[in-house]
Amino acid sequence: MKITPVILSGGGGTRLWPMSTPECPKQFLKLAGDATMFQMTLARVMDRDFFTPPLVVGNGAHAALIAAQAQEAGIADARVILEPCARNTAPAIALAALAVDDVKAPMLVMPSDHLIADVPAFHAAIMAALPLVEQGWLVTFGIEPTAPETGFGYIRIGAELAASVSRVERFVEKPDAATAQAMIDAGNHAWNGGIFLFRADVYLGALASLAPDILHAAQSAMAKAETSGATIRPDASAFAASPADSIDYAVMEKADRVAVAPVGMGWSDVGSWDSLYEVSPHDAAGNSIQGDARLIDSHDNLVRSDRLRINLIGAHDLIVVAHGDDVLILPRGHSQDVKKLSN
Amino acid sequence: MKITPVILSGGGGTRLWPMSTPECPKQFLKLAGDATMFQMTLARVMDRDFFTPPLVVGNGAHAALIAAQAQEAGIADARVILEPCARNTAPAIALAALAVDDVKAPMLVMPSDHLIADVPAFHAAIMAALPLVEQGWLVTFGIEPTAPETGFGYIRIGAELAASVSRVERFVEKPDAATAQAMIDAGNHAWNGGIFLFRADVYLGALASLAPDILHAAQSAMAKAETSGATIRPDASAFAASPADSIDYAVMEKADRVAVAPVGMGWSDVGSWDSLYEVSPHDAAGNSIQGDARLIDSHDNLVRSDRLRINLIGAHDLIVVAHGDDVLILPRGHSQDVKKLSN
Repeated sequence: MKITPVILSGGGGTRLWPMSTPECPKQFLKLAGDATMFQMTLARVMDRDFFTPPLVVGNGAHAALIAAQAQEAGIADARVILEPCARNTAPAIALAALAVDDVKAPMLVMPSDHLIADVPAFHAAIMAALPLVEQGWLVTFGIEPTAPETGFGYIRIGAELAASVSRVERFVEKPDAATAQAMIDAGNHAWNGGIFLFRADVYLGALASLAPDILHAAQSAMAKAETSGATIRPDASAFAASPADSIDYAVMEKADRVAVAPVGMGWSDVGSWDSLYEVSPHDAAGNSIQGDARLIDSHDNLVRSDRLRINLIGAHDLIVVAHGDDVLILPRGHSQDVKKLSN
Repeated sequence: MKITPVILSGGGGTRLWPMSTPECPKQFLKLAGDATMFQMTLARVMDRDFFTPPLVVGNGAHAALIAAQAQEAGIADARVILEPCARNTAPAIALAALAVDDVKAPMLVMPSDHLIADVPAFHAAIMAALPLVEQGWLVTFGIEPTAPETGFGYIRIGAELAASVSRVERFVEKPDAATAQAMIDAGNHAWNGGIFLFRADVYLGALASLAPDILHAAQSAMAKAETSGATIRPDASAFAASPADSIDYAVMEKADRVAVAPVGMGWSDVGSWDSLYEVSPHDAAGNSIQGDARLIDSHDNLVRSDRLRINLIGAHDLIVVAHGDDVLILPRGHSQDVKKLSN
């Protein structure tokens, strides 16, 4: 039974400002290579022996971006559900679960703004989780933590259910630094990466009992949806009536049979310019450069420019990002402060 | 007898790239305030009780800039000699000496790309030098050195000729660091700031004996000049025949009666971005900003932007200059390396 990829592309993060903007958020930018993270996400599930054509759930304002980038990536068979408004992940995934061809087939839900360096490891984790999914478990993939990050949710890994899959003992919301370090030290914790595998009918059943308002709004929006070719436009006022909630809060933290498949796969959420520097290729001097740039006596810098020419002399450990008429400059290690610009 | 100001505006320095370009070199940029250095130079000699209307000797390519900036500065009576090609300062000053109304009147020759913070001190030094000038001396103003700079020529101050004016014992070309330090320690040295006071006839006489080819080329170029209103265009081929030489080499270092008027007047040649930072106003955090900029947790930076918005977070001691589509970024203290970009 093939897996249906569900790709969530509705995010609008601004932590990678000035490149990432509401009009073109980071998943649609070629920040980490020749493809966008949205395109890389499509590419991870392009083996049609294993995956059905993908379902993209995105922001109506990004319809043209989604279509153009899927075409550029050579993906001609994607279907797209355009959300009329943002209601967080639980309702978005409900729309997809109502659109799949086979409600008993597993759905692989993936954000489109993460990097996965080791795709075979990801595929292996999916394979390990499939038997439990077919038995009705809701599976989340647990990212092997590499640092006591305070920006992620954590999962406490419980008893093993099968090889490489364990019961979720509990979810831990974004912790403080001491709690994060304690979990790292304990060793039986993973980051919650927002990647899920479950049957559509199981997810819809969980919603029915745990978040019926979300289910009903999604059902109503899909019943009155306009479909044109491969594009589905759920009814706006029906969908707007849905509570806004994440799948974690609405379902995963409350459902009974929830499992975690821990996986080390070179995952990054590219949540900041520092994070992008870490996952990007560097030259011999430690510089990661995209765009028109001249560097003299400079090392360990991140430079991204879509148009302007950046000239660095004797500079090190800087982040320099130019987009449009904005130039952002900060020392590496400070990129969480981009939010202070409150753009 | 009034003094005729001669303002040399032909320089095309590129050490302040990307702002300063051959098309619009630093003297025409509002780098240090609301006026350009060219305009500040005009303003220093605008007292018509003391100075005649100025003679500007400039690059033909800058004719429109010169006219517009003189007008903006409220100087309506300037005459302009447009050099058809660059032949360094000795020929440029010869053109001016041949254009003055009264060859026995003192000429005050000034570069237009320097700052003078204490104009009354400058005027006092001029007054001190005038009696010797009227007796036929060639006077240069000696800048009180503030550091062992290796980028300037030095003057060894000799015996006093009058109050605050001494014979030049010798000129010292740009020294190495040890020699510069030794001169600073000795205390009887000044920087050669390129500002001169002498009678036109005395200068032309010195040229006649020391650099007759320059004199003859200038005479020929002015004899065939085209004059239109206040603009004089010396003949191109005649002027091109002149040797290219500085007034220092061609005249001052070889002439007999050469004096120096040492003066502390807050002089700066603004020869680099670091130098501009030193002479510019700063806010309480030590930032010197012109243009559209947002600074968060940032201190002691120089920011100049003519169009782009510069966003600094947690940055300190940086030089950031944006002009057109170029952005230059370097740590303070490295601005002599701008030349490494070899634009």
